[in-house]
Amino acid sequence: MKKVAIILSGCGVYDGSEIHEAVLCMLHLARQGASYQCFAPDKPQGQVINHITGEEEQISRNVLVEAARIARGDIKPLTELNTADFDALLLPGGFGVAKNLSDFAAQGADAQLDAHVLAACKAFAAARKPAGYCCIAPILIPRVYPAGVKGTIGTETGVAEAFTAMGGEHIGCVVTDVVEDSRYQVISTPAYMLAKTITEADTGIGKLVKRLLEM
Amino acid sequence: MKKVAIILSGCGVYDGSEIHEAVLCMLHLARQGASYQCFAPDKPQGQVINHITGEEEQISRNVLVEAARIARGDIKPLTELNTADFDALLLPGGFGVAKNLSDFAAQGADAQLDAHVLAACKAFAAARKPAGYCCIAPILIPRVYPAGVKGTIGTETGVAEAFTAMGGEHIGCVVTDVVEDSRYQVISTPAYMLAKTITEADTGIGKLVKRLLEM
Repeated sequence: MKKVAIILSGCGVYDGSEIHEAVLCMLHLARQGASYQCFAPDKPQGQVINHITGEEEQISRNVLVEAARIARGDIKPLTELNTADFDALLLPGGFGVAKNLSDFAAQGADAQLDAHVLAACKAFAAARKPAGYCCIAPILIPRVYPAGVKGTIGTETGVAEAFTAMGGEHIGCVVTDVVEDSRYQVISTPAYMLAKTITEADTGIGKLVKRLLEM
Repeated sequence: MKKVAIILSGCGVYDGSEIHEAVLCMLHLARQGASYQCFAPDKPQGQVINHITGEEEQISRNVLVEAARIARGDIKPLTELNTADFDALLLPGGFGVAKNLSDFAAQGADAQLDAHVLAACKAFAAARKPAGYCCIAPILIPRVYPAGVKGTIGTETGVAEAFTAMGGEHIGCVVTDVVEDSRYQVISTPAYMLAKTITEADTGIGKLVKRLLEM
């Protein structure tokens, strides 16, 4: 049975992991016979957003503690992620990727990754173990892999351009498909960067997980 | 296209809606060609639980605002649920059912339902529109339907007994199956009351949604 590490970034599309994507990642891994373990950084969230009004709330929440909601409590701090224990890495999307795993939401193409996230992603790359990035998570790819790495990240103004400015080669892709860079064993899918329904996100993530486990 | 109202109870298995179940409900509805609208009570949660430690946190969160995380912001207060606009009702599980939609967690078989939840569920029952209850949510069934109503709620000590004490007839059922009471168009599945994996919950919820849309 293949073992996959999932990195979550909180709980909720606007300040954490996109919940549908995270659950669909788990569902497709389990359906396709893989096991998974969730991880998240143990630190305060960059923001807490009211998901009805879209406004920032002046309170503090912890990324790991909130991500535990999606993982039904079965989650570990990212510092405990040992690449040798896993066959592949998988990152769902959500603004938590841009606010907690990196500072892309504030810094755009100048974004830096959280040090533990960078170390974990680079360790999988160095070990030539496959990694899958959903939705906005591919914005991390140019900081992890060599210049020219291929990925897809939807059509939102400025995001694909930032991917390119950060050194990646952006490949447009429909929501139900994936983009692979077989040189680096890295794969991405637009998910809710483009999906209008949960079934569209489901199709793309299902395909990504299938290829991730085949690589 | 059939329209289904989903009642959420927060965001997270220990104090709100069970996230996997809520997402699987949406996924199966969308896959089977139905549309859905999420609702939740606009009131403080009964508790806020740290999902790593299991301990109660001395803070307040709002059921509707937290449930909006699962609904990607597309959610309405339960007071706006008009039965005439929908073909069926669907309730995922999670402790939010026992802490926010009712006081079952504290009161057991003496539990009362939140007044708006009771009104909504009774309106679907009175209109003879089908309703599906997952996981712990069937504990609401005996308060909504006449004595002797059939449902399933897993094997946890005291829960099936409470279902019976509240006037229901408990029917044991494996995690991948459902129990129907065709007299009242009500259907239930154990989901994470029994599921050991997300795929087990997925199978039962998929079957429940299929029957819900056929009814």
